[in-house]
Amino acid sequence: MRKQKKGCDVPDATILRLPLYLEKLKLLQAIGVEDVSSRQLAESLDIKASQLRHDFHYFGGFSRPGRPYQVAKLVPALEKIIGIAEPVHSIIVGAGHLGQALANYQNLDVQGFPIKGIFDVNPKLIGLDFRGAVVQDMDEMEAVIDKEAVKIAILTVPAVHAQAVTDRLVAAGIVGIFNFAPMDLKVPANVAVRNERMAVGIMSLSFKVKCILQNSEEKEEAEDL
Amino acid sequence: MRKQKKGCDVPDATILRLPLYLEKLKLLQAIGVEDVSSRQLAESLDIKASQLRHDFHYFGGFSRPGRPYQVAKLVPALEKIIGIAEPVHSIIVGAGHLGQALANYQNLDVQGFPIKGIFDVNPKLIGLDFRGAVVQDMDEMEAVIDKEAVKIAILTVPAVHAQAVTDRLVAAGIVGIFNFAPMDLKVPANVAVRNERMAVGIMSLSFKVKCILQNSEEKEEAEDL
Repeated sequence: MRKQKKGCDVPDATILRLPLYLEKLKLLQAIGVEDVSSRQLAESLDIKASQLRHDFHYFGGFSRPGRPYQVAKLVPALEKIIGIAEPVHSIIVGAGHLGQALANYQNLDVQGFPIKGIFDVNPKLIGLDFRGAVVQDMDEMEAVIDKEAVKIAILTVPAVHAQAVTDRLVAAGIVGIFNFAPMDLKVPANVAVRNERMAVGIMSLSFKVKCILQNSEEKEEAEDL
Repeated sequence: MRKQKKGCDVPDATILRLPLYLEKLKLLQAIGVEDVSSRQLAESLDIKASQLRHDFHYFGGFSRPGRPYQVAKLVPALEKIIGIAEPVHSIIVGAGHLGQALANYQNLDVQGFPIKGIFDVNPKLIGLDFRGAVVQDMDEMEAVIDKEAVKIAILTVPAVHAQAVTDRLVAAGIVGIFNFAPMDLKVPANVAVRNERMAVGIMSLSFKVKCILQNSEEKEEAEDL
């Protein structure tokens, strides 16, 4: 008999693949696909079928061995595992350009993270309206977190303020911080932080660009010979 | 004797760790640390020393076994490997909120990716100045790519236009695309794409938030018993 695992003691690499599985399955669902095998799903994502099965095994496996997954069941099951079966109330702290960009990013809402408040200290930003969410003074933050049962804070303040704001958020009951400041935040063990490091992304790109340019130079030299 | 590897046939997971190593080493350099062992460096990044050594091995290892790394040598070595020993000329295509946020993100410049142009089709955005880079009509894009030897394009256009713009960028000689549109781009084999999926980041956070809340509910129930 398959033993149900607790489903939380899971490696980060697996956790990061879950949204990719979900996105692909929703696409399949939208075009009317009802069943998909682990091999088909893995190939469509350019990963090994064994990796996918290993990932799913943390959550009980989802189908009998040799049987395909039923898309209509797997989508809500993954949403529940990812924690977005219900909307996850979120706030944006720091209404500069990046905070505004995220406030306007409709996809956040669609993906399950409705923005319940945006906060800043700059009087020029307070009062600006982003798709219905009006920038408020940071003094109002704790009250909104409480009233709206906010779970996640998206942190887009300058690095120099990030820790102080984090301490307030933790004290106010926030359990997850999506951190855009280029520094590590100190939080208690029962608060999760995800650092979003755009620099890492663009540097992985420059690595590949360097290799592409190296290869084409070597090709040219070889052709000259 | 240590064989120099070509240094490009490297797994993605390793490539993504290189900027983290570099960031940590630059911090150490800034506070005057001259030598660091693989174990110290790995611990400071919460990864296994064996993983770090395995990563470095793709590039020749950097030190004799048992000897620490010299920070002042490792920083430029890693910058060269990552491809940022020289600035990598970049452009931003799409001057909406996210494009503007990136245009104002000084860190891009500091990290080695100076913005040589910003482009849009919206007349209300054309002419806006972001730290010296003025938004130009997209008609000017190819000429700027050529004149400034631009290698990387940061793509912040709506998904519906992303592929068409990508085709123009590839034809103009762009070799790397940092893609913020939530879709997979089709490019030739000698063009690199990095998809920046904020949804993946925030969903990995919601997974952990769900587990944290689950744990605290179970604790409360246990205490009630």
